[in-house]
Amino acid sequence: MKNCEQHISPQVVKRLPRYYRYLEDMLEAGLVRTSSKELSAKSGLTASQIRQDLNCFGGFGQQGYGYNVEQLYNEIGRILALDNKNKTILIGAGNLGRAVALHMDFDRKGFKLIGIFDKNEAVSGQLVGHIPIRHISGLDDFCLENKPTIAVLCVPKDNAKELSANLYNLGVKGFWNFTHYDIANKYSDIAVENVHLSDSLMTLCYKINRLDEVET
Amino acid sequence: MKNCEQHISPQVVKRLPRYYRYLEDMLEAGLVRTSSKELSAKSGLTASQIRQDLNCFGGFGQQGYGYNVEQLYNEIGRILALDNKNKTILIGAGNLGRAVALHMDFDRKGFKLIGIFDKNEAVSGQLVGHIPIRHISGLDDFCLENKPTIAVLCVPKDNAKELSANLYNLGVKGFWNFTHYDIANKYSDIAVENVHLSDSLMTLCYKINRLDEVET
Repeated sequence: MKNCEQHISPQVVKRLPRYYRYLEDMLEAGLVRTSSKELSAKSGLTASQIRQDLNCFGGFGQQGYGYNVEQLYNEIGRILALDNKNKTILIGAGNLGRAVALHMDFDRKGFKLIGIFDKNEAVSGQLVGHIPIRHISGLDDFCLENKPTIAVLCVPKDNAKELSANLYNLGVKGFWNFTHYDIANKYSDIAVENVHLSDSLMTLCYKINRLDEVET
Repeated sequence: MKNCEQHISPQVVKRLPRYYRYLEDMLEAGLVRTSSKELSAKSGLTASQIRQDLNCFGGFGQQGYGYNVEQLYNEIGRILALDNKNKTILIGAGNLGRAVALHMDFDRKGFKLIGIFDKNEAVSGQLVGHIPIRHISGLDDFCLENKPTIAVLCVPKDNAKELSANLYNLGVKGFWNFTHYDIANKYSDIAVENVHLSDSLMTLCYKINRLDEVET
């Protein structure tokens, strides 16, 4: 089982948070068991695909019984390492940065948000939730003292290249990147997740246009 | 060329917004030409992959010359149908909904944001940018009158299922979905783009944890 975990394919990793999300809903609804068929109806994946994915993490799917919701939920949470408290800072306290800071449940997703920074002096000291915005000029000292390993980047693209290089030199190894800049291509020893909202919006535009063409 | 466009694979479609984004940067920087090699350095894709993707849209890549930035930018914009003005409403004017409304350049991405709705009466009438928040009770009438075809969903997951069904019945065909609910599995004749922020955050948690394991 451990051996299998070492070789989880990126495709399976991409699906694990979805399973975790469905299982969380089920737990909240008080469900004890689920099945690959039920997970299939929620996700649109085939039941056989789901069984194959989940078998990798041990054999708690039993024929005729299905999966124990809580057990599977905990196991996937463990694989995703969600009980970690990766020290995290967020840069760029504009509309998007503030929304991300307030909206996301960092604590339950493996992260601890310890600082928020912005280059606009006018917002220094304002609270986002319970965290004060600090001026970006204090970033280096803060990182040397507190050693965050994750940065959430919500800055304009012009700032992203220089900023990510600086953060990398300060020991940041993981980036949740909302900017247009593609950090991952520059460093090989970091973890990056991009949220390219405008790419997603443009993809939707393409899809909706093709939908019209199919109909007419 | 038209024939080729009809059969653009989903993988290529996913990459088009990225190319568009790089080309926009180049245009802003005043660049006239680019090459598959240059696009490769920015994107991390191989030059051969890029040539293959772009060849599909006509032969304006010339050996020894490369691509005309403006021409390629316009062509990809045309394929993505970004000059459309898909009438769009946004539901859920919390932190995330407001940030999305203010942060995204809908006009230049093929959409026209015409209404914002929230169930909280206390925020009715507040402006988000230049658009007033309307109470959700007026949604049906608004849709019947203005016929939006796209909805941006920024509501809690509990509301998403019923809301999306209602919007579908009101003629909405495209969803930019920030909720935890997976709409696409229910309807076959709609276009959906999901932005599952918590999935992305959990994936980052997994990646950063594995990074540590590799190093130790």
